[in-house]
Amino acid sequence: MPLLLRIFFSLIHYNSMDMKRTLIIFAATLLCGCLCAQTKVTLPAPMKNATMTLYQALQQRASVRDFQTKEVSDQTLSDLLWAAVGINREDGRLTAPTAMNTQEIRLYVCKANGCYEYIAKDNSLVKLSDKDVRKDIAGRQGSVADAPVFLVIVSDLTKYRFQDAKTAQFGAIDCGYVSQNICLACEALGLATVPRAGMDEAVLTKEFGLKEGQVLLINHPVGYEK
Amino acid sequence: MPLLLRIFFSLIHYNSMDMKRTLIIFAATLLCGCLCAQTKVTLPAPMKNATMTLYQALQQRASVRDFQTKEVSDQTLSDLLWAAVGINREDGRLTAPTAMNTQEIRLYVCKANGCYEYIAKDNSLVKLSDKDVRKDIAGRQGSVADAPVFLVIVSDLTKYRFQDAKTAQFGAIDCGYVSQNICLACEALGLATVPRAGMDEAVLTKEFGLKEGQVLLINHPVGYEK
Repeated sequence: MPLLLRIFFSLIHYNSMDMKRTLIIFAATLLCGCLCAQTKVTLPAPMKNATMTLYQALQQRASVRDFQTKEVSDQTLSDLLWAAVGINREDGRLTAPTAMNTQEIRLYVCKANGCYEYIAKDNSLVKLSDKDVRKDIAGRQGSVADAPVFLVIVSDLTKYRFQDAKTAQFGAIDCGYVSQNICLACEALGLATVPRAGMDEAVLTKEFGLKEGQVLLINHPVGYEK
Repeated sequence: MPLLLRIFFSLIHYNSMDMKRTLIIFAATLLCGCLCAQTKVTLPAPMKNATMTLYQALQQRASVRDFQTKEVSDQTLSDLLWAAVGINREDGRLTAPTAMNTQEIRLYVCKANGCYEYIAKDNSLVKLSDKDVRKDIAGRQGSVADAPVFLVIVSDLTKYRFQDAKTAQFGAIDCGYVSQNICLACEALGLATVPRAGMDEAVLTKEFGLKEGQVLLINHPVGYEK
């Protein structure tokens, strides 16, 4: 890297304005790439081997609002995220259906050390922010703020050709599929959760870098029941 | 019953106008009760014993659009409906969460012999219409019309104190929970399904007797894969 930088600066010194501009863009891109690579965490592959039957999970499904502060391991988190909206077929289709296979659901993971987006394709978490936003999500429902992880479901309506009442409806239904996967997978993995609509949308919009049309819908505190 | 009717008519003959009116109302209520009782089918209790794990169901979840005409037994239907939006706790809470426990989701069952509403409380089907509406639900996607059963999910927004964009969003998310339960339970029960948004809303509104604020959202053809 120091060598690359030395070459870069000597070239800047040497070349025309146009060349300088091209090189600056090139360097900025390189730098961005390096920074992004540093903030991407590849999770252990999901094991998908929890032994609970679907019907047991359905019988146990219940909302829990009191959590231990005990951490959720990366392996368990990987299994949970895969269940939520992971790829279950070679053609890239998901555990949760989406309207016209639009795959518009984005899943964010918020922990004490910051906010991440789950990327199903390579089972990774891309870091977006160093801020601990768990209290901003919990809001007045303080009992859930102890949860070590919050999952936040966003419907990215910009992936639809039109954005109207119908696509908003599709985006909300598709959020429900993912949220129910999270509820059931928590039962199978010995975790507890509750789907919640309330959260500080301004804080999350900023920390996740959301654009217009990317709608915050449901959050899930996730952890071990107190 | 004939004895009751004889008593009733002799009383009408004998009594004052007011008494007659009261008796007519009483008889009409009795008659309605009898008719309704005839159109309510109590399903066998759900067994909830399918052995597929949640993670196997998630791995297998895929939309299927070609069905055999083979019937789905009442036992299997009972297990499917319970998974979708059945009661899983003594306090009457459900397998699918709903916003503020509003329990606004209504589930309709459409078969060759008519349309029914699923009543989770007593695990029954109340008949609403003799019409076979499966082709009206399938519409142009003719391949799904062979399915012996269609489940139709309605969000009853009249159960919210206000009806605005937010409650419409809640209603749609809550529909997604139930729809994903159906997708996963179909896998565990050896059935096939696909969640679909398209359907003849005018026909279904009429046959189900829906009011304003009761919104048709998703339908599921259900059967055995061709």
